This record gives sequence, C-alpha cells and structure tokens, in this order.
Amino acid sequence: MPKKLIIIGGVAGGASAAARARRLSETAEIVILERGSYVSFANCGLPYHIGGEIENRNALLVHTPDSLRARFNIDVRTRHEVIAIDCKAKTVAVRDLCAEREYVEHYDTLILSPGAAPIRPPLPGIDDPRVLTLRNIPDMDRMMAALDAHVRRVCVVGAGFIGLEMIEALRNRGLEVTLVERDPQVLTPLDAEMTAPLLETLQRQQVKLHIGDGLAAIVPGPQLQVMLSSGAQIETDLVILAIGVRPENKLALDAGLALGVGGAIAVNVQQQTSDPAIYAVGDAVQVSHVVNGHPVILPLAGPANRQGRIAADVIFGKKAAYRGSQGTAICKLFEMTAGTTGLNEKALKASDIPYRKVYIHANDHAGYYPGAKQISIKLLFAEDTGRILGAQAIGESGVDKRLDVLATAIQAKMTVDDLAEMELSYAPPYGSAKDPINIAGMAAQNLVTGLSSLIEPEELDAAILAGATLIDLRQPEELQQGQIPGAKNLPLPQLRTQAAFPKDAALIVYCQIGLRGYIGQRQLQQQGWSVRSLNGGFRTWKMMQVARRLISGSDSVRTTAA
Amino acid sequence: MPKKLIIIGGVAGGASAAARARRLSETAEIVILERGSYVSFANCGLPYHIGGEIENRNALLVHTPDSLRARFNIDVRTRHEVIAIDCKAKTVAVRDLCAEREYVEHYDTLILSPGAAPIRPPLPGIDDPRVLTLRNIPDMDRMMAALDAHVRRVCVVGAGFIGLEMIEALRNRGLEVTLVERDPQVLTPLDAEMTAPLLETLQRQQVKLHIGDGLAAIVPGPQLQVMLSSGAQIETDLVILAIGVRPENKLALDAGLALGVGGAIAVNVQQQTSDPAIYAVGDAVQVSHVVNGHPVILPLAGPANRQGRIAADVIFGKKAAYRGSQGTAICKLFEMTAGTTGLNEKALKASDIPYRKVYIHANDHAGYYPGAKQISIKLLFAEDTGRILGAQAIGESGVDKRLDVLATAIQAKMTVDDLAEMELSYAPPYGSAKDPINIAGMAAQNLVTGLSSLIEPEELDAAILAGATLIDLRQPEELQQGQIPGAKNLPLPQLRTQAAFPKDAALIVYCQIGLRGYIGQRQLQQQGWSVRSLNGGFRTWKMMQVARRLISGSDSVRTTAA
Repeated sequence: MPKKLIIIGGVAGGASAAARARRLSETAEIVILERGSYVSFANCGLPYHIGGEIENRNALLVHTPDSLRARFNIDVRTRHEVIAIDCKAKTVAVRDLCAEREYVEHYDTLILSPGAAPIRPPLPGIDDPRVLTLRNIPDMDRMMAALDAHVRRVCVVGAGFIGLEMIEALRNRGLEVTLVERDPQVLTPLDAEMTAPLLETLQRQQVKLHIGDGLAAIVPGPQLQVMLSSGAQIETDLVILAIGVRPENKLALDAGLALGVGGAIAVNVQQQTSDPAIYAVGDAVQVSHVVNGHPVILPLAGPANRQGRIAADVIFGKKAAYRGSQGTAICKLFEMTAGTTGLNEKALKASDIPYRKVYIHANDHAGYYPGAKQISIKLLFAEDTGRILGAQAIGESGVDKRLDVLATAIQAKMTVDDLAEMELSYAPPYGSAKDPINIAGMAAQNLVTGLSSLIEPEELDAAILAGATLIDLRQPEELQQGQIPGAKNLPLPQLRTQAAFPKDAALIVYCQIGLRGYIGQRQLQQQGWSVRSLNGGFRTWKMMQVARRLISGSDSVRTTAA
Repeated sequence: MPKKLIIIGGVAGGASAAARARRLSETAEIVILERGSYVSFANCGLPYHIGGEIENRNALLVHTPDSLRARFNIDVRTRHEVIAIDCKAKTVAVRDLCAEREYVEHYDTLILSPGAAPIRPPLPGIDDPRVLTLRNIPDMDRMMAALDAHVRRVCVVGAGFIGLEMIEALRNRGLEVTLVERDPQVLTPLDAEMTAPLLETLQRQQVKLHIGDGLAAIVPGPQLQVMLSSGAQIETDLVILAIGVRPENKLALDAGLALGVGGAIAVNVQQQTSDPAIYAVGDAVQVSHVVNGHPVILPLAGPANRQGRIAADVIFGKKAAYRGSQGTAICKLFEMTAGTTGLNEKALKASDIPYRKVYIHANDHAGYYPGAKQISIKLLFAEDTGRILGAQAIGESGVDKRLDVLATAIQAKMTVDDLAEMELSYAPPYGSAKDPINIAGMAAQNLVTGLSSLIEPEELDAAILAGATLIDLRQPEELQQGQIPGAKNLPLPQLRTQAAFPKDAALIVYCQIGLRGYIGQRQLQQQGWSVRSLNGGFRTWKMMQVARRLISGSDSVRTTAA
C-alpha cells in the first residue's frame, strides 16, 4: 500500500481515483495536482450552459477543491502544473502557477489523468483569437464572452459530438451557423446512412452544410474568412473548432513511459503504465476494444471514471481489471437522438471481420398508444456465430434505451438469437410485445437461418442494371412518400394471386420498412422465384440517398447557396 | 410438415404462430378458430381507450380476419368455438356461434392459444351486472357503456397491473375511485417497500385505499355495497374486478393433456403438450422461470408472441426452444413508472435462495441537466457468485431503460461486477458517467467484497433496541425532510474530525440515499469502529414506512375516512 499517492489531473478519472482511494485507505496521503482552476467539473455539460438549458454555471462544478478536502481529506492543489516526472527518484516537479514557484514532490504511486486536448491543426490563421475550442470551464467562459460580443454568425468545424451539441446551443441562442466537416458524413462513429436524419434536422434548423470539405485556412480581418479545400469560402464572426482531441501525453513521453496508438499512454488491464509505480486513466490512455481487441483511443466519460476506480483498487491491493471499451456514445441534436455501441460497418470492413447487417425501423412504443416515434436500428453481427458486433440507432424517443440494451448484449457476447428471445419491459407507453430489439434479433435470425434473403441498398443499382425486377409491395397511397426508380407497384395483399413474372426473373421486393418485403419474399421464394428483399426497405434506401446527396462537393455548395 | 394446422385462439400467441407458420410454408392449410369476435387485438391497450388516451377504438384492432386472410392466406373463423378435442382422431368439434351449428374439423397439428380468463371468486353478489372485468374488446365496450351511464363512483378490486391502469383511466374520466386489495401491498410482483411511491401517487390522486383487506361480498341495490373482510363497507356504482386471471384449460383438461401448476397447460421447451401433435402457447401455459427453473404461470404479451413463433418453427421443422420467462413487467401509474424483472425478495425468501440486496436512488440523467428525476432501484443478487437474481425500479423517467438493461443482464446470467463495468450510453440528457446501473453494480460489488457493511431498514428497530448508535450524516438543512427517530446529526464533512464515540459502540450511519452513508462507514470502520451503513439511506427507510403505514387494517380504514 502506498503511503503517498499523487494524482495528476483532477477531473473525471483523477477525481474518481482519489475518492475511491480514500474509501480504501484513511491513512494514505492523497494529493491531486491540477493544472487548471477547477476539479471534477461536468465537461459534458459545457455546451448546454452555452445553449442556455443549464442556466446556473455553478451546477457544472460537481466538486470543488474544498468539498473534496472536506469529504475525502484530499490535498487538492489547483493551478499546480506538473512539469516533469522523475521515475527513478519517484518525484514530480511541480510549478505553482499562482505563486510562480517550483517545487519537487515525492510519490510512492502516481496516477496520470491528464486528459486530452482539442486538436488545432497548423493552418494559416488558426491562432486568431476568434477561433475557439471547448474543453473546460475557462474555454466555456471565453466562448460565452465571445458570443455575447456582437457575434451573429458562427462556423463550427467538425461534426462530432461536441460540434453537433454546439450547433444546437448556438441555434438556441439564435445565431446563424455553418457546419464544416472534412469527412463525407456527420457523426463519424456512426455509418453514413444512419446519420441521414441528423442531416435533415440540420437543414430544418437552417444550418448551412459543407460536408466532405476540409478546413484549409482562416483569413483574419474585420470578419473571419474560412477557406475550405474545395475553394468554398465562409464569412463568419467566430469559428468553433471541434475536430477531435489528442491525448495529453507530454509528461508520459518525457518520462519515457511506453505510448501506444496515436500517442496514447499504454497501460495494462490494471491501468498500469510501463513503470509499475505509475498508473494512467481517462482520455489520455490506450484501451483495448471489447469487440475485436484492437488497441484504440476512445475518450469517454464513463470509461474514465471506471478506470480511475480500478486504478485505485489495484493500488490498494484489491483485485480489479479494466475490460476494455466498446465505444458506446450518444448525441442529442434538437429532437433527434443518435448513438452507437461496438464496431460500425466501416470498422468491420477495415478489420476484415466477416459480418452481416440488418436494418429495422420500429416504433419506440405501441403504435396505438399516442406519441409513438420510429426508431431506426442498424445491427451488425458475426456471419458465423451471430454474435453482435455493433449497433447504431437513431430516432426521437427510446433510442438510448435500445442502445443500452445492445451495449449490454455486446458486453455479454450475446448473439442475435439472444436478442430475439429477450424479455423486455412492455406496456403500451414503453414498448411493444415485440420490442424493436426483438425485431432486430428476429430479422437477423431469419437471415442467419436462410429464411430471409436480403439485398443491401448499396447493391440495388447494380442489380437493377443487371436486369433484376424491382417490386414495390406498398399500398398505392404510400407511394407519395417517394419510390425507388424503376419499381413496379404490386401491393402485398395482391401478391399471392397476381404475381406473374417469368420463372427465371431475378426479383427484388421492398416495402416501407422491410417487414412486408420479407413476407413477400417468403411467398415468392416458396413459389419458386429467385427473390431478395431490400434490407430495411424504402426507409433505409432513402436514408442512404439523403446521406449521399449531401456529401458530394457540388451539392454541399448548392446546399449552402440555397 | 403438417398439411393442416389448426390454431385455437387468434390473439397474441395464436396470431403470431399463424403468421410465422405461413412464412415457413405457403402450402399448409392454416385455420384459426376464435371463439370471440376479434383476432389479434391489442388487449394491453384496453385501459387506455377507456381512459381516453387512445381515442380511436379501431386502433386497438391490430389485424382483422380479412387482413390476416389477405396477407397470410389464413382461414380465420371468428365466433367459432372449439368444444372438444379428440386427440386420437386428431379432430376438433367446433360450434359456429353465429350459425348455431356444430361440425368436426381434422388437424395434423393443433396449437392451443386459449389465453386466460379473469378470476371471479364465488362470492355473494359477484354476478351482479355492475361487477365487470376487462380482458377483451367486448369487455371494454361493456365497461365504456356502463361508465357512460350515470356512474360516479367505481370500486376497483385488485391492485395489479390492470387494476392500477384502470384507476388511472377512471380518474382521467373524473370518477371517484376506491381501491380494494387483499394483499398487504399494491403491485405484488414488486416488493412492498418499492411500491411506496405508487401509494403516494394514489393518495395524491384522491383514490381511497383499502390495502390488506379482501372482498367478502357485494350487496346489490340501487347502489352496490362492497363488503370487505374487515367489515368495512363501500358504496359504489360499479365494481371492476381485476384480481388476476386463470388459464383457460378446459379443452386441454377434457382432452386429457397434462396440466401443471395452477392448472396451466404443461409444455416442453418446444411448446409441445403431452400429446405430440398438440402445442400450446401464451397465457394458458406453464413456463419455467429463467432464474430458478421453477414451473410458473406468467401471463405476459411478449412471451406469448415468442412462444407462438417458436411453436410454428418447431412444427415446420426448424430448431427452436423457449428459454423460460423471467417475469419482466412494467406499469404506468400517472407520472410514475414501476417495474420488475427476475425474482423479487418475497420469492427468493420463499425458495430459500441465499441472496443479498442493495437499494440505490440515482438521477435518471445528469443532475445538472434540466428535468432530472430520481429512480429507485432494488437489486437482488446471489450471495456467493454475485449473479443478478432480480431487480425492481420505480421513478418518473428512465425506469423502463434500466429495467431492460437489468432484464438483459439476467438473461445473460451476468453478475454485479458486470453491472459495475457496463458501458452505457451517456450524454447529460440521457444518463450519467456513472449510470444508475453502474452505481447499483458498484454498491453490490462493495457489499460482496466486504468494503461496505450494510444494515437493512427492516433490521433497524431491533438494532437500536439493542443499543446501537444511529448517526445521520446529512447536512442540517436536509433534516426537514424527516429523520429516523433516535438519530444524532453529524454531517459527513465533520465526521472525520468530530467522531467521538465509545470504542465499543455499535454505530449505524445513514444519509439521504446511501452514498454518504457508505463513505462515512468506510471512514469510521478504518478508524476502528464497528459500523454499518443503512441500505438505501433515509429514502429507502421512508419508503418502507409508507408501505407499512398503509397496510395496517386500522390505517386503511382511517385513510378511507379521511
């Protein structure tokens, strides 16, 4: 047991480690050295204070140095920056930023919880004071001061979680917003087609979109001119840079600790670095991905907190091990909720894991009970075992619930059979006798057992070109929602009696969401036709169209001009 | 493969079986024989149409005989009652209730999905036409007609799911409601203390409560006089009987099929009865409980649907097996949501399974984001392995999500360690970096590993009587919410410096929800005291008080009189 534990960084991981350490040992000396002015603040809440939902700034200060001291007898030193670690001597060199003095402090065990810093690419004009990032309380204060000062137009660069949350905050403040995203989609932890409802929401909110176009330079002047790779130019009063974070690894690097992918601090499952007396937790460390075991960086609040707890347990002689991260994340964008857990299709393709996928669209609760909203779920699973590899969901209600069930299923290494058999809570206000989770599991099960035969929306064009016959099984009144070019309408109730296709025809059937497509496919297949049903129906096809339309360079410019 | 499949009963299980059977075989003859006038209706939605939330009666008719015929080519015969099964001849005798004729129909395979019927105990006056039950569309129509006819006061007998949903419906119609429940609590699938918020809601809604007092007789007259076992008497215009259901087993019994507990139809995991050509599904069958393997009756919509699908799979040669039921159920009562999954404490005690429990109270989402509501969770787990055995949750928001995660965890045979490590979706509007699920898992883990030492609220009186010192660790301003008699207030921040108790004192500490209690317990324990922390803090203790106060006979009468 260490007599003296020093923790560098007093936010999520560091504060958790300190509190747990004190519960395990009343006698240890526990010191938190925090470079900033605040400890244990709610950094996930910052955009909501800017947007006005969280009115009271103090609500974001979960703990103060005083409250940590009073409750846990922890020596909390804010504005004390560690500038070097001497692993051999087991000391840290500390600079007191207020008193402007330096001193050396000995440790028995050290925990690094330095976090991550917003990325600022070395582009012309990036250091203009009107180019801001958001990571901590002073960043937030600075941004609010800037927004109060005659800002009318803001350009948000980066369409990740922070970028999207900031867009909502800025629109809530009545500002004009332009979004710039280098990747050909928003919210890259999801696959592109699943983000289509977010694009529609952004358009409804009159956000100007430049998707698939990178930031090239910022030209200062009375207004800022944001120059994009495509040549497009955006005039704005303020730029918010939200293109990701990089691990704060300088101390670890200088101390000679092993680093991993992207410069993250390498740790074992006990959160121990290459120096056995030094542990590391939170956004700065490398984790193993739960699904494929790959080393990754996944800066998330939940894992940071749990890693802090685990490090303290190990340090004070309790058995504990971090199991890896699975990338569960969720985002609110106005009325929409979008989230993911496990690996997405892009990652599965990149890592050559054989997978299958199903898309389903189902009501969050019984359709006959008021207020039902459709949730779209994409479920990715192993081709051989049916093990769930990843899932994404988007909709207006009940999305977080299904994501959490799927996250739990991934943690438990469950299969699509398990999803089909889940007994979830059902009463009409909450779900359906067959929950969307059951439906996703059953659809996947049907695919695995060969009952259903699917064609992916991205394969459709090629199949039609090769001569396939496309049959729309919806009722005539549904066609006003749009149709896939080339489709013939033959409503499902007439299919059994009116199907008259050449015996060697390659048939593709679809309906609105995929259920009637599956039923029709079973009918036609048993009557001897070669037939596939469109995965996720018209709805998924349409989502893919929306996602594609908005990523092509010319369209993005047109969107902006419109 | 059967050429001819007959299904008796066309609601949840029967309709699911029929639809699945058709997807598996285009050529089989599939006949549904349904005694009632409706198939595949939303029986879970009935109370909400009565209450007015579901305005359109037709919304409850998920499928009609015509739509089943058109989509699935199923021969649906409503108002056709099977009056006998001849297992040897493989025939059913059918009465056409409209044409008033009888006929015999042959089957290759038979599926029984007869459902369950509301219990009507043989009490004096029970057959008065003003004593109604609610199970199907005609019941609902009858009840709505009765409610329209000058009814002002309704007495609901039975505080289960239907009873509580009916109370909300009746109050929404502006009626005076009295609730009679024989058991000493409402919503018996939960443990009594967890239902306290429901009792408070019922009182706020001015429902007169007779809890722990049974129905003895009903005396007809211009008004009905409801006589209770205690001697109490309730004058009312209408009685709604919602005291449970019993399996519709007459056909099975007469046919000599094996029956199980409570007269439910016994089936194997393939849903096959003791006659290999006859399957049974839904509310009439016995299931094996997922947690302890005991045979039970759990009439629930989700299991009925899945059993129908499984029976069809087995009949048409696909591999399938029902895994058992775990009793996941949920109820909305005005602003409150309450639910359960797995075994409750009463059942664990009755089946002598060694268990431990933790109570936690945590916000459904980050407290600093607007609208956070407290969820109370009771987690029951195996003393030796930490395996989750059951869970109950109650609150205003996010209850269904946590129940579904816990239901999934029970299905996956997860442990409290798994809950502690779950990576659930977190952004401030949806959860916390430590979700209530994580907190429950961590609290249980602390108990299993001996870090925390708990006293149960039900043990408190005895401990105080035996001389224990009770310390309230809350801040002085919190005490206005009430205090446990005999407690001394010593706020946690002062505990480390001001704890001055005899070295041999038996200390009990508590706070509002249990977190500070645990922190205080760790402090005092490490300083050498024998100390326990009150499980779930003041909040759980208070819930137990509320539940107890309302069940004693005299109080229930007083409540009514007030």
